[in-house]
Amino acid sequence: MSRLRVDLNADVGESFGIYKTGQDELLLRYITSASVACGFHAGDPSVMRATVQLASRAGVAIGAHPGFLDLAGFGRREIDAAPQEIADIVLYQIGALSAMAGAEGLKLQHVKPHGALYNMSVRRADVAEAIARAVASFDESLVLIGLPGSELLAAGSRLGLHVAGEAFADRSYETDGTLTSRRFADAVLSEPGQVTERAVRMVRDGRIIARDGSILSVRADTICLHGDTPGCTALAAAVRHGLERAGITVAPLKD
Amino acid sequence: MSRLRVDLNADVGESFGIYKTGQDELLLRYITSASVACGFHAGDPSVMRATVQLASRAGVAIGAHPGFLDLAGFGRREIDAAPQEIADIVLYQIGALSAMAGAEGLKLQHVKPHGALYNMSVRRADVAEAIARAVASFDESLVLIGLPGSELLAAGSRLGLHVAGEAFADRSYETDGTLTSRRFADAVLSEPGQVTERAVRMVRDGRIIARDGSILSVRADTICLHGDTPGCTALAAAVRHGLERAGITVAPLKD
Amino acid sequence: MSRLRVDLNADVGESFGIYKTGQDELLLRYITSASVACGFHAGDPSVMRATVQLASRAGVAIGAHPGFLDLAGFGRREIDAAPQEIADIVLYQIGALSAMAGAEGLKLQHVKPHGALYNMSVRRADVAEAIARAVASFDESLVLIGLPGSELLAAGSRLGLHVAGEAFADRSYETDGTLTSRRFADAVLSEPGQVTERAVRMVRDGRIIARDGSILSVRADTICLHGDTPGCTALAAAVRHGLERAGITVAPLKD
Amino acid sequence: MSRLRVDLNADVGESFGIYKTGQDELLLRYITSASVACGFHAGDPSVMRATVQLASRAGVAIGAHPGFLDLAGFGRREIDAAPQEIADIVLYQIGALSAMAGAEGLKLQHVKPHGALYNMSVRRADVAEAIARAVASFDESLVLIGLPGSELLAAGSRLGLHVAGEAFADRSYETDGTLTSRRFADAVLSEPGQVTERAVRMVRDGRIIARDGSILSVRADTICLHGDTPGCTALAAAVRHGLERAGITVAPLKD
Repeated sequence: MSRLRVDLNADVGESFGIYKTGQDELLLRYITSASVACGFHAGDPSVMRATVQLASRAGVAIGAHPGFLDLAGFGRREIDAAPQEIADIVLYQIGALSAMAGAEGLKLQHVKPHGALYNMSVRRADVAEAIARAVASFDESLVLIGLPGSELLAAGSRLGLHVAGEAFADRSYETDGTLTSRRFADAVLSEPGQVTERAVRMVRDGRIIARDGSILSVRADTICLHGDTPGCTALAAAVRHGLERAGITVAPLKD
Repeated sequence: MSRLRVDLNADVGESFGIYKTGQDELLLRYITSASVACGFHAGDPSVMRATVQLASRAGVAIGAHPGFLDLAGFGRREIDAAPQEIADIVLYQIGALSAMAGAEGLKLQHVKPHGALYNMSVRRADVAEAIARAVASFDESLVLIGLPGSELLAAGSRLGLHVAGEAFADRSYETDGTLTSRRFADAVLSEPGQVTERAVRMVRDGRIIARDGSILSVRADTICLHGDTPGCTALAAAVRHGLERAGITVAPLKD
Repeated sequence: MSRLRVDLNADVGESFGIYKTGQDELLLRYITSASVACGFHAGDPSVMRATVQLASRAGVAIGAHPGFLDLAGFGRREIDAAPQEIADIVLYQIGALSAMAGAEGLKLQHVKPHGALYNMSVRRADVAEAIARAVASFDESLVLIGLPGSELLAAGSRLGLHVAGEAFADRSYETDGTLTSRRFADAVLSEPGQVTERAVRMVRDGRIIARDGSILSVRADTICLHGDTPGCTALAAAVRHGLERAGITVAPLKD
Repeated sequence: MSRLRVDLNADVGESFGIYKTGQDELLLRYITSASVACGFHAGDPSVMRATVQLASRAGVAIGAHPGFLDLAGFGRREIDAAPQEIADIVLYQIGALSAMAGAEGLKLQHVKPHGALYNMSVRRADVAEAIARAVASFDESLVLIGLPGSELLAAGSRLGLHVAGEAFADRSYETDGTLTSRRFADAVLSEPGQVTERAVRMVRDGRIIARDGSILSVRADTICLHGDTPGCTALAAAVRHGLERAGITVAPLKD
């Protein structure tokens, strides 16, 4: 009987030039996989290098977090780009980060699209296919992270990639499995005990309680923690320790 | 007795979005090494992919041509960046292009800094060191192209890199070995016979006649051809054929 | 009885840095209004200044042609920006161009959104409203150019702006009044005689023959000519002279 | 006998997209002139609009703070741009900010170049001339702020502009009148009493004590306060109140 296991991931390296954001150094103590911004929606080459070094020292697995070239919009605005253009910007960013990782003696573990690219890859098969193709053309052993049930994970599987379903312990879910819009006050959960309990239940039972009380099935290969909210590192610590206390192994996606 | 040998290189992939420049497809018939713009001073990810595919089909070796992030200035304006920042942008760009090459089953052969970065690497030891370090940290088998006698080649050699001295058959030289400023009418040569003769002499004798008639020593591991001037492809053809007629092997920097 | 009258406009100033596009100088001989790119989708400050100077010398009225900040996509990709963000980038670009015009002693005549912004302003009331508000907040005497029947012209009218309907003599129309997609071979017309005849008919009769032979009503306060196609200046000359021969006054939108 | 008088200025609007920096709202309570970033080295159109609105509500005079197009370097890296290019980017940025101000019913009071552009304008007559020309071509009633004794103020005066010498109460000076490099621990002063005393002395006596104890003459039409350091608003309050207690009128550059 195999032990229960989950990965904890967070988006890091989102500073740019003089602009500092996130608490990467603290967060890296609790997560097992770091998705590093690649210079398009956030991060610049110097931030990327420094972030890779921090993750390396913390022993955290590194992945690419490619986004649209839209610093002003932080990659959160959908851009009507052609699938081939999307494949090209994703491959470009993976290569750039991989070079930074290689200079530290590391290989990339995964790729997780950012923001609007992530959202578009949930429902648009052509975008999903473009991203998965770019990942596979770089390295077929990379893990592709996306929303469970998304076109992205389907495309990744078709191409023979390892895929990992991502769940959000600190976000409220709707009955249809989507995340509650941030327009609602209860979209984001911040009480450590509650978030930890949800995380444990996701991994142990594959279940999460939706906003209306109904119970959803969820595939949680990796749980996303946020690094840009007040109290985020305390929350990360609580979730990490809660999972371990529940006998769940917290480890990167690849051994 | 080894045969005489030289590489012919040109800068390619300098289009961007709707903006087309250069005659890459024609030029690739005559050159043996292509320095591909990496998205900072020119080129975008889609142009990079297409350029790598063209070079691959033409059987031409590929290298990275990293520059400053300055599309408006085409990377020709010196920017007072810290050496570490320069190392970071160079490594980033090499990685990005390498990913494009890898998707076509190719490895990069060389790195040649562009424009202001190239010029700064001639005389500034800190910039040269930063560039050479970035190249070595990516792949120690890459060839580093620079001006003969430059700080760049010295830094590359110190780090154990293969270095290649670049000469310009279609440019006039001053007595001190620098190129004649483009402010002078006779800075650029365009007569195919004359340019070809200079190319042959560079390789066969290691000599070039300066603007004032004096004779200079020059190390020409690779000769640079330009792809953005009228008649450039005819000139490239003339030089290629002239070198071969003179019994000189025209081949990439690495076998 | 007032004489028939129409404006001829073209998009100009779309070069960027070393990248040259369009035949602005020739085109400015035939048009009466120039829509100048403002640095976001094309144009840089130096190109803008030079373009304003060319238009000034040619006696052509100047307008702002604001677009999305997307040089790689030439402003043709829709970006899911908030209306307030759109208002802000439009106002920013109008101000920037106005400063260039002012340095030549000129005032802006009009604003015409570019590419994806133009298309979004046809059907999205919130985007149209944002653009119109930005224009009105800068100068209520500016003319707002858009597609006849668009949300943009409706929003402009509501705010008390002068609006001008734009027609395309060299493009094929569908029965519903939209332009034939460029995916079809007959989307773009290039035969000078035919294009001229269509231009005259648009102005004289307010009618255009659609692709399927049906007759459409069209409001043509200004006719758009393209500057980036082979033969575009010959076409511009033919249309200009054809309109004048038909007794139609070709003049800017404002006297 | 005229009363003593000085302006207090600070750089504001330096956020960008999701990146927040500075404490503009608090700082605006104490300063009389706000230099607003114009989108090139910092600020985006939405940040600019919001900043202008804040300044307007606070009754603070607004000026343009143009910089190099170098967000990654925050405009602090010198770029070897041609004087005409510099004139063009300065005029562009002034125009853009002026449009934002106009939408709030305000006119710009001044222009102060940012970072590397400011530093280059101290010693390079061609750069100074380019900036001053751009300012004059936009509006001859704008005040040009620069370092006392700089080429910038000389160029502005030659062109008939009002110029204002800027002094730094919280920075240490060298004997030659330059600011002590930030590499030294005592380059920046943060003790409110000391900074206030220096400010008062600058205005009342036109004198400042240099790092080595010698006494320098300084022309302080405006005193710069920083908004990006811890305790900056307390320091701003102390300086403002200290100047007023000393009988000095704190008021914008233009009435």
